[in-house]
Amino acid sequence: MEKVSLIIKNANVLTIDEEFNQFSPGAVAIENDIIKAVGMETDILQSYSADVIMDADGKILMPGLINAHTHVPMTLLRGLADDLRLDVWLLGYMMPVEREYVTPEFVQLGTKLACAELIRSGITCFADMYYFEDDVAEATAEVGLRAICSESILKFPTPDAQSYEESLAYSIKFIEKWKNHALIIPAIAPHAPYTCTPEIIEKSREIAIKYDIPLHIHLAETQSEVENMIAENGMPVIPYMDQLNLFDAKVIAAHCVHIDPGEIRMLKANNAGVAHNPSSNLKLASGIAPVKQMMDIGINVGIGTDGPASNNDLDMFEEIRLTTFLAKGSSGDPTALPAKTTLAMATRIGAKALHIEEITGSISPGKRADLILIDIEKVHNAPWFRHSQESLYSQVVYAAKANDVSDLMVNGRWLMQDHQLLTVDEKALMEQGQKYAQKIDTFLFQRESSILSKLVAIGGTMEGESFEVQIKVRIDDPAQTVNSILTSGLSIQRKRHYHEYDTYFFFDDPEQGRLRYREDHFLSEKNEIINVRSRLTLIGENREQYFPQEVMLSRSRFYAPATQSLRFYKEYFNPGNTVEVEKDRKRYLVSYKDTEIFINVDTFIVPTLGSYLEIKSRTWSRLDAENKSKLVLELIELLGLKEKPIISKDYIELV
Amino acid sequence: MEKVSLIIKNANVLTIDEEFNQFSPGAVAIENDIIKAVGMETDILQSYSADVIMDADGKILMPGLINAHTHVPMTLLRGLADDLRLDVWLLGYMMPVEREYVTPEFVQLGTKLACAELIRSGITCFADMYYFEDDVAEATAEVGLRAICSESILKFPTPDAQSYEESLAYSIKFIEKWKNHALIIPAIAPHAPYTCTPEIIEKSREIAIKYDIPLHIHLAETQSEVENMIAENGMPVIPYMDQLNLFDAKVIAAHCVHIDPGEIRMLKANNAGVAHNPSSNLKLASGIAPVKQMMDIGINVGIGTDGPASNNDLDMFEEIRLTTFLAKGSSGDPTALPAKTTLAMATRIGAKALHIEEITGSISPGKRADLILIDIEKVHNAPWFRHSQESLYSQVVYAAKANDVSDLMVNGRWLMQDHQLLTVDEKALMEQGQKYAQKIDTFLFQRESSILSKLVAIGGTMEGESFEVQIKVRIDDPAQTVNSILTSGLSIQRKRHYHEYDTYFFFDDPEQGRLRYREDHFLSEKNEIINVRSRLTLIGENREQYFPQEVMLSRSRFYAPATQSLRFYKEYFNPGNTVEVEKDRKRYLVSYKDTEIFINVDTFIVPTLGSYLEIKSRTWSRLDAENKSKLVLELIELLGLKEKPIISKDYIELV
Repeated sequence: MEKVSLIIKNANVLTIDEEFNQFSPGAVAIENDIIKAVGMETDILQSYSADVIMDADGKILMPGLINAHTHVPMTLLRGLADDLRLDVWLLGYMMPVEREYVTPEFVQLGTKLACAELIRSGITCFADMYYFEDDVAEATAEVGLRAICSESILKFPTPDAQSYEESLAYSIKFIEKWKNHALIIPAIAPHAPYTCTPEIIEKSREIAIKYDIPLHIHLAETQSEVENMIAENGMPVIPYMDQLNLFDAKVIAAHCVHIDPGEIRMLKANNAGVAHNPSSNLKLASGIAPVKQMMDIGINVGIGTDGPASNNDLDMFEEIRLTTFLAKGSSGDPTALPAKTTLAMATRIGAKALHIEEITGSISPGKRADLILIDIEKVHNAPWFRHSQESLYSQVVYAAKANDVSDLMVNGRWLMQDHQLLTVDEKALMEQGQKYAQKIDTFLFQRESSILSKLVAIGGTMEGESFEVQIKVRIDDPAQTVNSILTSGLSIQRKRHYHEYDTYFFFDDPEQGRLRYREDHFLSEKNEIINVRSRLTLIGENREQYFPQEVMLSRSRFYAPATQSLRFYKEYFNPGNTVEVEKDRKRYLVSYKDTEIFINVDTFIVPTLGSYLEIKSRTWSRLDAENKSKLVLELIELLGLKEKPIISKDYIELV
Repeated sequence: MEKVSLIIKNANVLTIDEEFNQFSPGAVAIENDIIKAVGMETDILQSYSADVIMDADGKILMPGLINAHTHVPMTLLRGLADDLRLDVWLLGYMMPVEREYVTPEFVQLGTKLACAELIRSGITCFADMYYFEDDVAEATAEVGLRAICSESILKFPTPDAQSYEESLAYSIKFIEKWKNHALIIPAIAPHAPYTCTPEIIEKSREIAIKYDIPLHIHLAETQSEVENMIAENGMPVIPYMDQLNLFDAKVIAAHCVHIDPGEIRMLKANNAGVAHNPSSNLKLASGIAPVKQMMDIGINVGIGTDGPASNNDLDMFEEIRLTTFLAKGSSGDPTALPAKTTLAMATRIGAKALHIEEITGSISPGKRADLILIDIEKVHNAPWFRHSQESLYSQVVYAAKANDVSDLMVNGRWLMQDHQLLTVDEKALMEQGQKYAQKIDTFLFQRESSILSKLVAIGGTMEGESFEVQIKVRIDDPAQTVNSILTSGLSIQRKRHYHEYDTYFFFDDPEQGRLRYREDHFLSEKNEIINVRSRLTLIGENREQYFPQEVMLSRSRFYAPATQSLRFYKEYFNPGNTVEVEKDRKRYLVSYKDTEIFINVDTFIVPTLGSYLEIKSRTWSRLDAENKSKLVLELIELLGLKEKPIISKDYIELV
């Protein structure tokens, strides 16, 4: 009779090994961190003795769940902003807050808070991707969970690196530190094809191969990612990655929502693991991944929660159920992904997807002791049927909840017993987390209270306040006015022809000013579009001063290039109402008495306001403004429009 | 200062009224069963006093959830059979078990077990549809939940009625008994268009209008329901129901998965409430209902769990999250159905869908006190952000779990306090439920162990065992053999021409016999198909006896009309392997020496076995069999085939 350190008996054992062996009543013999044997209780008790024999009380004993893709420190951003479009969510909320708050301390706290939730959800192993991944690893190892910790590399500055070269250097140091740790598997994460250069992909692949570690990457998450990839590189995402030899590494491909049958075959041929994230893909409206098709061809598809900011939790029971529901609902086949198969995706097949199948993922002799006990004797899981071999799988997948997990062991160490966490103080962590949330709330309260702050938060170079002298007169015949300008003898330094599309955002609080999204189409002599430029202008509400001649010293202005779509800005700034204006503009930069002055000949298309001559000049002081306003009035006279009433309003005020 | 019976203070109150008022810290004043006032805590405490003032400890206080469609007694069938096609699941498992076990006692127990789970999931009101609905009502009223109890009417016999006339009579008695009860709203449920006759629909509608009660019905759940409706009635489901004036009643339409924009407008115009059941629709692969489109047009769409046999639980938190996830994922718009809207669907809008909005669905003065407390201070819901008015909704919808509901009140009565159920003994109910499960397990073990039992279980009239004398000879020229028959002088009483498609199911245990699915295409003189008939034949394995001349007395046979598809039978019987056979058959019923004998001239198409003459006659005794075997051999000689070797095997044994 062999002596082991622990026997767990009287369990409904789901091994989820290749043969899906079940033992009821079953037992598991564990020697320190290793599973020595699993079988019927009578067989195990005949062959093994142990100082500690634990009675599982008829609970289900199965391998711990594997969360194949997440960003655990984002637990501190759970529920920060929801029900928004991906770009508004990411560029408007996540990234500005991350830029401000993500530090090693933030990452350690977020990781520990996540670990508490992961343990309560029956998760023994997770594949993470974030910044300061060394701190994710430190915190995870301290709590005692198993993790693949993948340091993110992006072409942009990140919270932990000013450049990707810094990130790569960090990664190498990080990998060398953690390689061969009992719990932590370091990995490298070129974030996604659209956030990395080909050089980043290639360098990351080289590092992954050199150190024999997984390479973790987001692939084909959204339709627009695929469309942009085809537009830029003439092929979809997977072939492009193959062309960069990405798949020479042990790849963990998160999402793979928008891939075609050829790409599925390519993933299979290259033994890439896939991490399916059904909640996140639905919540961000990315779509439904072809999971059944990937499983049918034999790809190892694991299941992940994605980060808690886009889920909003780390509950694998929800993801497992959703995986099987979506496969059925989207295929029209209710036999697709039966409970047994999905539970294997969340355990053994997930371990294969993460390239760690020799370590964990099933209750099999030789693997590490990563296991959970689930109490299904609950009112929401009653009664129990046993006429079929599938019944226990059904109970776990279709009726059990995260909260039914009572005990959890990683690497032979209990992290939870009878619902009590043994290695983290969750109350203290929640209190610390709440302090961050309050700081971020204050930051966002202030930002959201000011359109200017919101404009600054989404970046872009900003010009400061500006003032200008501005005057308009109504004209009847713009061609004749143009002719007057050209024949006036004025020195014309530059002329331009645009078609301008403006959208004005008005806010309930008029003190916020108004925001203009302007798309300028530059036209050639032949009226062909030769260039397009978009920019945002925040226009202050208060007029500084009127001069006697009704020449206006205008309001404060802030400019930013508009790199996102009009739709993005509408959703991000959420104006009370909007007004569209479209006009044709001929613009002349003239020099008059050594002063640079702009003359615009504008004809409105939407709304039909008619045509105007507008004369403008930048200014910086009251004296300068007074001088320029005189010059502007002289120009009006010079162009033969002296009798026309002078208009000092902005166009939008005429609408 | 007004005196009330109870004040709940220090709550984060989500009223989910029309204005979505929130009060933090808020309070609610309750007088017996009625909400008197809701507002900021300071305001309520200034205006009201009470003997009992409860501190909600910062928990969320909101209206109880409304489960808009379910079959609560089916809790006792949870997990009975999963991952099956709808017809196999329904006809192969649910209905046979229901026929055997559904009694008033079963219904009462199932309802109480369900109530325990409903309370733990924060559900204060549900719309049920089942049999013995009087017992559902009794059990629900005893536990103290609010329910719409809808008695099912079908054109088939049901567990509680031999005919629909019985069901209608039961319904009227049931309605008269429960009308005006404080908790129970009786309703009538013509089950679905495809399980009811137009007369049932019309009678049900008349009863619903006469008693001013809701009419609860399954509509447009599957694509095939719609296709069949169009084939039979030339229009989709909703217009057909409109033609029967269904919508003159207060309709609760469950599912509405497959409806077009015109049908959506028709539901709106008729003020029909819709019950959306996302888990069930996915799990049974019915599809994804156009919920956003229905909500956009202003239809009152509630959310339901459907029965626990197709879900497999009664957890509204899962359904709410899934509703918003699916709306986003299927529309590509992550702003679709924000958390606030979906939570309203599960409360106030759900009440409207059930036509009981004046009673319940929001924390509004004058409504009944149906409310829950949710503790979101949990590790899976930390931290809390408060910079946005949407934050609390997000926390409830995207991160909270059923288990976070700590307290529940219906009609002013606490049914759960601090997670303790006050009106049901869930442990005792689970034990009683388990006894049923064990009985059903035994029933299914026995049934699954015998193909014959499985055949009997899915109904159809069965003929008993049969025996026949049977002989074959190989022929070279079937046309010549036909000619010999026609010119033999035999009295031909009937002739037929078929094309036969057989699928043989073989089982791992040969003693089970083999099952044949045969589709007979009857052909006219011009070889046109004039009729099609399908039937199942279970053929016993053992030959009774061989006679000296190798004329065979065949094996036992059981017949059943095949009313389902071949695919259904394959999935239901799950054979070890199957073999396809296709042949052309000319069949002659002849009278020879006062004995009726069948002569078949068969030519195989798949596989290519050539042509055969087969002579058969039914028999009932050994003596009769011996006589007939002599006659059969004489006929062989008469047809000039005496020299051919006689074959006594079934065709399938030649394949």
